[in-house]
Amino acid sequence: MAAFRFDDPAVQSYAFYSGVLALKTLGMATLTARTRYVKKVFANEEDTKIKNGFVKFDDPDVERVRRAHLNDLENIPAFWLLGGLYLTTGPETTTAITLFRVYTIGRILHSIVYAIKPLPQPARGISFGIPFLIMLYMGVKVVSFYASAL
Amino acid sequence: MAAFRFDDPAVQSYAFYSGVLALKTLGMATLTARTRYVKKVFANEEDTKIKNGFVKFDDPDVERVRRAHLNDLENIPAFWLLGGLYLTTGPETTTAITLFRVYTIGRILHSIVYAIKPLPQPARGISFGIPFLIMLYMGVKVVSFYASAL
Amino acid sequence: MAAFRFDDPAVQSYAFYSGVLALKTLGMATLTARTRYVKKVFANEEDTKIKNGFVKFDDPDVERVRRAHLNDLENIPAFWLLGGLYLTTGPETTTAITLFRVYTIGRILHSIVYAIKPLPQPARGISFGIPFLIMLYMGVKVVSFYASAL
Repeated sequence: MAAFRFDDPAVQSYAFYSGVLALKTLGMATLTARTRYVKKVFANEEDTKIKNGFVKFDDPDVERVRRAHLNDLENIPAFWLLGGLYLTTGPETTTAITLFRVYTIGRILHSIVYAIKPLPQPARGISFGIPFLIMLYMGVKVVSFYASAL
Repeated sequence: MAAFRFDDPAVQSYAFYSGVLALKTLGMATLTARTRYVKKVFANEEDTKIKNGFVKFDDPDVERVRRAHLNDLENIPAFWLLGGLYLTTGPETTTAITLFRVYTIGRILHSIVYAIKPLPQPARGISFGIPFLIMLYMGVKVVSFYASAL
Repeated sequence: MAAFRFDDPAVQSYAFYSGVLALKTLGMATLTARTRYVKKVFANEEDTKIKNGFVKFDDPDVERVRRAHLNDLENIPAFWLLGGLYLTTGPETTTAITLFRVYTIGRILHSIVYAIKPLPQPARGISFGIPFLIMLYMGVKVVSFYASAL
């Protein structure tokens, strides 16, 4: 439990999947922009000149992508923090790598079933819930490991 | 000012309170879900089948929890970053631990007086303002410490 | 590619600009509060007593600041993560420092042209796009560097 070492396979896994999740989250901004362009629906007056569009705040397709994006913001930064701190609690390497991998797959599926190809529930519930449980697990590990610091 | 050492009491305090804040923020998602279920108010058509609910975007109870959650997203990731960098500026251990502790208590109270048991102002203002001032303090410390990197 | 060393100029640059970006993001909360006060437009019933204001969710000035703030939340935490991981991939010091500097200038300009003094497009598009491309670049660097951890 010394400093972070980026030659540790679990830390490398954390770096890889955290990077993938960052790119995935940035992709939601691109998806919002694309949906706005296709539907000519913008949030700012100055944007409407680009494509003869109009200002509208309740387009269902745009808002669906925005909800998926906000859900990323509610979850993925917490993963970056918890995943990093979890590594300092001395987890089994294979456990840590599996958690990071399943978390990332879950969040990618969540974006797909929420914003790209909406599916009936419980598709979104499961793809939200499993990564969420992984974060709770890592959070409880971190807090109990450092509980003497209360 | 070498690398992070997780056997330093201030770093352990940072890890503990950051983990607590992550779990608290995740709790807001649970609270939103619970409020949606109780009031049968959902944001997506595919969710309404679960409980014979309906799509509604302006339920006051759901929106209040969502505002409290968004306020967490506006504040807590900034704490994770600033708290971590502040530790590299060589603060007094007891000062750092006190700041992390007060920050966390403030943010927990903020969630309570905003989303769980709404109280008259200035309850929310104070529980928002003190953590906010702590972040400003840490931010100024970090920026001035590394100012030669401008 | 050992642990983070805060005596490395690129790491110091990361710490400085990350701190600046955190303070800038916190400034958006202050700007929202100020706009709410000036226009007496609040999101919560308990806030309206402060200034004889009223509850309103679609004031164009307040919503513009809030969109700029949300755009920060969509971008800046991803920079904190990607910038930090990018440093572990062994970049040229001057390249890293230049990316951090341009990113920060871009995001500050973005806030100005979005929320403080709205300008015609493509002012906001450019000040959003260049930092966004920098994040994509760093993200691809991180993911490809750690690709063996897949």
